[in-house]
Amino acid sequence: MKKILVINGPNLDVLGKRETNLYGSETIDDINKALQKVSVEKKVEIEFYQSNHEGDIVDKINETDAEGILINPAAYTHTSVAIHDALRAKTLPIVEVHLSNIYAREEFRHKSLIAPVVSGQISGFGKDSYTLGLDALIGLLKQ
Amino acid sequence: MKKILVINGPNLDVLGKRETNLYGSETIDDINKALQKVSVEKKVEIEFYQSNHEGDIVDKINETDAEGILINPAAYTHTSVAIHDALRAKTLPIVEVHLSNIYAREEFRHKSLIAPVVSGQISGFGKDSYTLGLDALIGLLKQ
Amino acid sequence: MKKILVINGPNLDVLGKRETNLYGSETIDDINKALQKVSVEKKVEIEFYQSNHEGDIVDKINETDAEGILINPAAYTHTSVAIHDALRAKTLPIVEVHLSNIYAREEFRHKSLIAPVVSGQISGFGKDSYTLGLDALIGLLKQ
Amino acid sequence: MKKILVINGPNLDVLGKRETNLYGSETIDDINKALQKVSVEKKVEIEFYQSNHEGDIVDKINETDAEGILINPAAYTHTSVAIHDALRAKTLPIVEVHLSNIYAREEFRHKSLIAPVVSGQISGFGKDSYTLGLDALIGLLKQ
Amino acid sequence: MKKILVINGPNLDVLGKRETNLYGSETIDDINKALQKVSVEKKVEIEFYQSNHEGDIVDKINETDAEGILINPAAYTHTSVAIHDALRAKTLPIVEVHLSNIYAREEFRHKSLIAPVVSGQISGFGKDSYTLGLDALIGLLKQ
Amino acid sequence: MKKILVINGPNLDVLGKRETNLYGSETIDDINKALQKVSVEKKVEIEFYQSNHEGDIVDKINETDAEGILINPAAYTHTSVAIHDALRAKTLPIVEVHLSNIYAREEFRHKSLIAPVVSGQISGFGKDSYTLGLDALIGLLKQ
Amino acid sequence: MKKILVINGPNLDVLGKRETNLYGSETIDDINKALQKVSVEKKVEIEFYQSNHEGDIVDKINETDAEGILINPAAYTHTSVAIHDALRAKTLPIVEVHLSNIYAREEFRHKSLIAPVVSGQISGFGKDSYTLGLDALIGLLKQ
Amino acid sequence: MKKILVINGPNLDVLGKRETNLYGSETIDDINKALQKVSVEKKVEIEFYQSNHEGDIVDKINETDAEGILINPAAYTHTSVAIHDALRAKTLPIVEVHLSNIYAREEFRHKSLIAPVVSGQISGFGKDSYTLGLDALIGLLKQ
Amino acid sequence: MKKILVINGPNLDVLGKRETNLYGSETIDDINKALQKVSVEKKVEIEFYQSNHEGDIVDKINETDAEGILINPAAYTHTSVAIHDALRAKTLPIVEVHLSNIYAREEFRHKSLIAPVVSGQISGFGKDSYTLGLDALIGLLKQ
Amino acid sequence: MKKILVINGPNLDVLGKRETNLYGSETIDDINKALQKVSVEKKVEIEFYQSNHEGDIVDKINETDAEGILINPAAYTHTSVAIHDALRAKTLPIVEVHLSNIYAREEFRHKSLIAPVVSGQISGFGKDSYTLGLDALIGLLKQ
Amino acid sequence: MKKILVINGPNLDVLGKRETNLYGSETIDDINKALQKVSVEKKVEIEFYQSNHEGDIVDKINETDAEGILINPAAYTHTSVAIHDALRAKTLPIVEVHLSNIYAREEFRHKSLIAPVVSGQISGFGKDSYTLGLDALIGLLKQ
Amino acid sequence: MKKILVINGPNLDVLGKRETNLYGSETIDDINKALQKVSVEKKVEIEFYQSNHEGDIVDKINETDAEGILINPAAYTHTSVAIHDALRAKTLPIVEVHLSNIYAREEFRHKSLIAPVVSGQISGFGKDSYTLGLDALIGLLKQ
Repeated sequence: MKKILVINGPNLDVLGKRETNLYGSETIDDINKALQKVSVEKKVEIEFYQSNHEGDIVDKINETDAEGILINPAAYTHTSVAIHDALRAKTLPIVEVHLSNIYAREEFRHKSLIAPVVSGQISGFGKDSYTLGLDALIGLLKQ
Repeated sequence: MKKILVINGPNLDVLGKRETNLYGSETIDDINKALQKVSVEKKVEIEFYQSNHEGDIVDKINETDAEGILINPAAYTHTSVAIHDALRAKTLPIVEVHLSNIYAREEFRHKSLIAPVVSGQISGFGKDSYTLGLDALIGLLKQ
Repeated sequence: MKKILVINGPNLDVLGKRETNLYGSETIDDINKALQKVSVEKKVEIEFYQSNHEGDIVDKINETDAEGILINPAAYTHTSVAIHDALRAKTLPIVEVHLSNIYAREEFRHKSLIAPVVSGQISGFGKDSYTLGLDALIGLLKQ
Repeated sequence: MKKILVINGPNLDVLGKRETNLYGSETIDDINKALQKVSVEKKVEIEFYQSNHEGDIVDKINETDAEGILINPAAYTHTSVAIHDALRAKTLPIVEVHLSNIYAREEFRHKSLIAPVVSGQISGFGKDSYTLGLDALIGLLKQ
Repeated sequence: MKKILVINGPNLDVLGKRETNLYGSETIDDINKALQKVSVEKKVEIEFYQSNHEGDIVDKINETDAEGILINPAAYTHTSVAIHDALRAKTLPIVEVHLSNIYAREEFRHKSLIAPVVSGQISGFGKDSYTLGLDALIGLLKQ
Repeated sequence: MKKILVINGPNLDVLGKRETNLYGSETIDDINKALQKVSVEKKVEIEFYQSNHEGDIVDKINETDAEGILINPAAYTHTSVAIHDALRAKTLPIVEVHLSNIYAREEFRHKSLIAPVVSGQISGFGKDSYTLGLDALIGLLKQ
Repeated sequence: MKKILVINGPNLDVLGKRETNLYGSETIDDINKALQKVSVEKKVEIEFYQSNHEGDIVDKINETDAEGILINPAAYTHTSVAIHDALRAKTLPIVEVHLSNIYAREEFRHKSLIAPVVSGQISGFGKDSYTLGLDALIGLLKQ
Repeated sequence: MKKILVINGPNLDVLGKRETNLYGSETIDDINKALQKVSVEKKVEIEFYQSNHEGDIVDKINETDAEGILINPAAYTHTSVAIHDALRAKTLPIVEVHLSNIYAREEFRHKSLIAPVVSGQISGFGKDSYTLGLDALIGLLKQ
Repeated sequence: MKKILVINGPNLDVLGKRETNLYGSETIDDINKALQKVSVEKKVEIEFYQSNHEGDIVDKINETDAEGILINPAAYTHTSVAIHDALRAKTLPIVEVHLSNIYAREEFRHKSLIAPVVSGQISGFGKDSYTLGLDALIGLLKQ
Repeated sequence: MKKILVINGPNLDVLGKRETNLYGSETIDDINKALQKVSVEKKVEIEFYQSNHEGDIVDKINETDAEGILINPAAYTHTSVAIHDALRAKTLPIVEVHLSNIYAREEFRHKSLIAPVVSGQISGFGKDSYTLGLDALIGLLKQ
Repeated sequence: MKKILVINGPNLDVLGKRETNLYGSETIDDINKALQKVSVEKKVEIEFYQSNHEGDIVDKINETDAEGILINPAAYTHTSVAIHDALRAKTLPIVEVHLSNIYAREEFRHKSLIAPVVSGQISGFGKDSYTLGLDALIGLLKQ
Repeated sequence: MKKILVINGPNLDVLGKRETNLYGSETIDDINKALQKVSVEKKVEIEFYQSNHEGDIVDKINETDAEGILINPAAYTHTSVAIHDALRAKTLPIVEVHLSNIYAREEFRHKSLIAPVVSGQISGFGKDSYTLGLDALIGLLKQ
């Protein structure tokens, strides 16, 4: 069974607890449960990881033995060359997801430093961004 | 049964016939068949539309009675305020899709004028961008 | 009797039917009626033209035998060098109008590619932008 | 009878006396007479004010009891945040006018700091910019 | 006999009829006759096409069976990603020509979106830009 | 007893009378009373000055014999090199204050031409910006 | 008794030990003692926190039960979207302080990514920036 | 005898009294005496004018009957479109002078809004900038 | 017989000897021979000149008595205001040529400082750029 | 014996294990061994440190008692003001090294935020960048 | 007797022979004669130097034993860091002169790379720029 | 024995004679002697070359039969596309050196046009930049 690493970046630990008008009331656990359900159907193994530390995420990417990565880099989307480099060094399919449509928000969220090194990007569908992303990633793993 | 309009922008008429190293060998008809298959399963009606003309696409958006739009604006992604305006005036869920990862290509393809007025965006999964986009759109229509 | 061509650009065909909070509920026909009324008083002939197609608008400008042009280029205000070139080649008085105050909207609407080749510009008075523009144009034709 | 304040900014005191090839030979008095004539027809009261001082114009805007403002900010169009702030604090209809088409002149005249806080803008019709602007302002006062 | 498609973009239909001080008095027919004369000497077949519509030009490029393209994109030189994409997908020699020296004109005409996908570019020699361009294209077809 | 000059720039004469949703309903007199109260406690003398004129503020700075300056340059914060130069030539402690958080407002209010020549800056606390600023200034005078 | 969290960002652990010509010889402990003294007078509780880790600061903000935050983000002022997001998600009054006048230093310190999400900002008064900031914060908590 | 107007802009009233390390200890009176001496030798009449007010300087330029202008616009060099407009409307020889070499100072002093409308510019020679400028102006008046 | 000066800029002395994958294996002598052949047919006299020195090229332009200039400025295309000035001062027809399509190369090669002062430009046809350029130049000399 | 701290930034822990076409197959241990060898010859003590955490690197710099620092900041080269500040506060010789020539790579790697606070920089020589850098650092320590 | 070096940059060898409408009909010899006349009166020795070569001008500056330099760098004003460096290394008074007002010409002539390293600059007075510059330089030599 | 060409660009002929506070008192001859000493130890032959002329340096690069190049392009680092092109055409190892840390100086010295075409770059170690560079170059020649 293929293993997929799901990475959630900074502040996603408080998802669903604050700014519910913008992000809805679902928590990171709710998202993980939805992903877990898909993984059972599609017969893949999932490892969940969340951190507010740029360095921790780099460590995790460097250490993982997963065969695919689903990542919501959150704030680090726009500032982290380190995560860019870590992802680029992997030869795995990688899918970048965002809860909100980052291109309809503030100017400084329009630029993703992560996008140039991923297979594809999905943004704006709330929790569904994750399940669509997992579908996309499994599709890439089958090719 | 809910009706969805699928719009394909300029040069997608020659998809799969040229530059196959970049876009693969599947044609717009292959994509339409894949979408048709999903629509049958999910019980929605689909209307397909392709044009190389910015004005035709604006006309189509203004006239349609569809309840959701799936659009690959292709080259007009980066230059059309007219399509931006037409889509903004609709109160429908709209999903923007791209075959390739536009953020990993030339600088002038990094900016989407369409993104600020859609519900979400999916790019980089080839044909799967369309089927994932249709899934996402149906999800939005159910809310 | 002098003839004036009134050109309306993309998406003005749905004016008054969508986004009424932004543009009001008057349609393009209501505007045309107001212009017609002025034309009768001022003894000029008016031809109305609306298109969502950049090329159609260029064709119309190149073919017309009108002695003055009143144009609301809408979205093409910000993207069309072709309409700029077509208008520049005419030696007629030309007036550019906008329903809303484009300088109080998004950054990308602050720059008009059309303004450098017109006699004058009126923006922000809703339907009155057109009637004021017609008055201005008739004034220029009398000089 | 409603009262309208007409403000003319710097260097309009020498209008018609210098650079007549650019601005014509009509003086600020000629413009005021034309406005006076319209005001009699339309039954509004007009107060004229001209100053070369940014601070005087701010004082005037803060002190006036007029119900509408017609302003040609001239050179201060491009440099005055103070006039922007003064106008924004009023809850009156305000119309900005320019003798020449500022968008067909030097680059530094293309940006108006005043435009974002007015109802509408008219530029390029010489003396007629003022009479059209007065018409537009009266229209707004009637709404 | 090899076939060459000659494409003329927007406003070239009125060439020689307006702004003759800038572009001279020769019409698009005069240019076509000069090209016809060369084609007879050099034994190539020529098809002429002119349109003011960006979409029409994309259609034409996608449908043609010509073995070389000579194009004056006119105003679309500076705004069309769609024509860029259509030309890039062809594996033919392509020559871009301009009547006037676009680098000696307004700033917004200095950037060509078409140039990166053509074999070469010729600008500034009036009608001769076309005949020189045809010579160049025939040279490329012989290699 | 040390003397402090309090300078209020353009439009602060109408503070508390307009746009009360943004700036609150306290007037410049209310602020002056609060400052007066602090000055009595802290045993300093205060002179109040308000003007809408850039030149008047420069005059005042050049003529004053105060030992410290508390200034809210308002709109001139962003446009006045003259006030920058006048303040720079003084060898007094100077504190810049703003009622609102200027960095959370429009882009053109983010740049202060005054900040490089003051001891410190306080913004965003409404009337308290002034009393905190006076405290800070007295602290600097004691060093 | 209300609780306030005082956060000190990177390199403030070595404050007063290096670059004393720029920041003076007072250490972070000296600052904390000054704040402690104010807190006793004003009857609030203070928790001190310092870290060089962007992620740790985000954690702290997300976990704290304090009712107000006083923060000197130091180097992260200019680069951290993560701290921006963490602060924005809180509904507490927040005051940003800086020891030196950041607007009189290098260009890259003129832009604060933190400023748009705080109540107010104080910079340039050395240790007093903190005590003034605490005063300001207590004022906001009383409202 | 030809009459020359000498205009000194903001803060030149305190020249020689502050920042003497930068500008030297000579006052505006010392400069005027040096100019007076030259004027007697060269048989021209001089009128001196100094103001810290942008509007006053515009008034003076518009009202003067002098046949040549020598101006040190000081801080308004970099911010005043109004003085630019006033000078441009005159058909007199105009010379711009600066005490210090403005191109060797801060970035925001490198751009002169006044330079495009003067005959010539002299900067960097302290008091001698004025006497050289007067020589230059007399030379222009003789042509 | 009319005389034409052919100028080749820096590094063209090693053409055909290095980087042959980019520029082909033809040397500057091969190009000169091809030009010589055309000149015999067209009855013009040609003088060849090559230098790696910007100053030499300026000298040559200033001293020549040729009636037309064909120039490949190579690297100086992008950096030389001196050659721009020298060419501008001539009242001869001038044609700029480039071996490769400079608009399809690095960003810093997209801007030509020479183009604004030449009659026309030809780029991208290898050796044929020169012979086409000579044809174009002879055409201009005949007008 | 003098002590030198060698700091390796993010992703250098996987050096030689991934992207070997770009960086070669030598690992960080291989580099350390080469440095160790030099240190024995030159009689200096070396401490090795690697971390993916920006904050850890700041801590290390703040705590070290080394007399010189050799640093490859990797991805943090381009984003870390915190490391810039930490290094600036040290009064030690510091040498910045890079395995690849960062100026021949992507645009965003051309700007080093670290360079302004180091003694010198060496880039592009693979493992030799480190040994050359150590030589350079020892040279500086001897002065 | 003090010695002054007068340097004239590229294309000044053809001054007065071409573009006389822009620069007048006086040649570099006429200018030299005027300078010679002043030098006799003021008892200084002058050496004249003109070159179209950047390197020659650098050589000359490095070798000269003159005590002051009067330089018109012409086109190199805007492109030469080498001349900037050469002048900066001298500890002599240096005056930069220009025949025309460079700030009233094309955008690329507004920036002088030379100005930051000279004592002062004079531009716009034709031949008089040189004689005024020589006066200014002699004044500096006397201090 | 392998031959290495050492190129020194403009103003290095006066090194050690001027601005000794910035560059030290060692001359280009002192540097050459140090390089000579290394070359004897490492058994390579060295040819020294210095010129203030861009064209001379291009000539030298094109003509040399050396197997490696060590270059300090000095001022031409920032302005010469010609030297960039000449170096790019060579297939030799090339090392760029700078005496001072160019990234810690003025903005216009931060960009090297030479860096993209060299093997590596060393800056900031004074004379040692050369000897380290020679070491690096010999290392590359051995590979």
